[in-house]
Amino acid sequence: MTEANDRILGVLGGMGPLASAHFMLRLTLLTPATRDQEHIPTVLWSDPRIPDRIAGRAGTGPDPLPWFLRGIDGLRQAGCGAIAVPCNTAHAWHDEMAAGGLPILHIVDAAAADLDTLRLGSRRIGVMGTVPTLQLRLYQDRLSALGWDCIQPTEEEMQRLVLPAIAQVKVNRMAGAYAPLVEAVNNLASRGAAAVVLGCTEIPLGILAGPQEALRVPVVDTIDSLARASIRWARPG
Amino acid sequence: MTEANDRILGVLGGMGPLASAHFMLRLTLLTPATRDQEHIPTVLWSDPRIPDRIAGRAGTGPDPLPWFLRGIDGLRQAGCGAIAVPCNTAHAWHDEMAAGGLPILHIVDAAAADLDTLRLGSRRIGVMGTVPTLQLRLYQDRLSALGWDCIQPTEEEMQRLVLPAIAQVKVNRMAGAYAPLVEAVNNLASRGAAAVVLGCTEIPLGILAGPQEALRVPVVDTIDSLARASIRWARPG
Repeated sequence: MTEANDRILGVLGGMGPLASAHFMLRLTLLTPATRDQEHIPTVLWSDPRIPDRIAGRAGTGPDPLPWFLRGIDGLRQAGCGAIAVPCNTAHAWHDEMAAGGLPILHIVDAAAADLDTLRLGSRRIGVMGTVPTLQLRLYQDRLSALGWDCIQPTEEEMQRLVLPAIAQVKVNRMAGAYAPLVEAVNNLASRGAAAVVLGCTEIPLGILAGPQEALRVPVVDTIDSLARASIRWARPG
Repeated sequence: MTEANDRILGVLGGMGPLASAHFMLRLTLLTPATRDQEHIPTVLWSDPRIPDRIAGRAGTGPDPLPWFLRGIDGLRQAGCGAIAVPCNTAHAWHDEMAAGGLPILHIVDAAAADLDTLRLGSRRIGVMGTVPTLQLRLYQDRLSALGWDCIQPTEEEMQRLVLPAIAQVKVNRMAGAYAPLVEAVNNLASRGAAAVVLGCTEIPLGILAGPQEALRVPVVDTIDSLARASIRWARPG
């Protein structure tokens, strides 16, 4: 075995388990490889018992941090050299997760790298996500620090378009989610967004359920962004 | 945390990585759960560096067994209580993998459990798979021991229908694989098969690409069978 793939990727998942499985699919499909042996060795720690992140952050439920740290320790013992976390809300604990020394790839930095490749003419972008992700300002603060001017759907658009569409995707009704999500993206474009970051695992699945030409600006699927960042880590240079 | 899901499932994967990711998706979708916390804790050891199983079995390539044992040891250390292996050919080493004491769920036993639920009127069934899976008699010998009379595609059908269809699926041309696979299933039905076991991860993807009414007999998707066996292990009684 003289393959160049000795870097083992850890995936801290189970939040939810479907998003983790989808991340593994996208990681595989985005990796340049012509046979099994050229793919990235990966250990997925899918622990759906991790307490609800939204309640944990609000202080109304158990703290998920000890569960995150247990998973990270398991992945370290398995030989993983870096960790991807395919869950947006979990990134509220990014610093605490990274404190142990194992690099935790940041999903917002991954999205920023994809934004850079779009070579947009403006620094104004839209960010879509669940209410907690937007309220925690996970994307807005970190992207602002990188020079992006972030706008988001209005409260009326969240209630009428984004949240009902996410609920449709969660019950596998992708087609019904398509039109409202496209309207939300295009409304952000009307207000000057040169691209829209889809900071939630459900939103891309709805947007992919219809013709992409209807979108007036490019969108960034953050699960794909995290997969690409993982591939760059595993295959440097 | 008083959930009843303290059994951690190990998945020895990477053979190939797409089949592992697909198994994780099906495991999640087949698990009865209404929220993340009711899903099965799972550790996926996806090591695509594992040497080619077909060459290893033929003695023309490195032995994959030490890689299997390394993965099983990693899964044991992660706290896994049983292991599923979403790769048909790897089951040629089932006994050696199970020798360490950790139960290895057998994909053929999983398929047999699904055959039982079909309540067929005859014990004659068809088995489809790659040439090595059929030549190694992984399905035929174990299913025969359970009282099934196994028939398989003719050499002419393998060359004209099954192998070209598998090749189409491997390059994501599912639609082109549908008609030849349905013909192969129905030819087995014409020779008396009351059901057909799809002992390969590519075949079900091709068969699902068109109307299922064209199939004259039920088919058993062995990735789904292994997922159901995993759920029964994790949720006994």
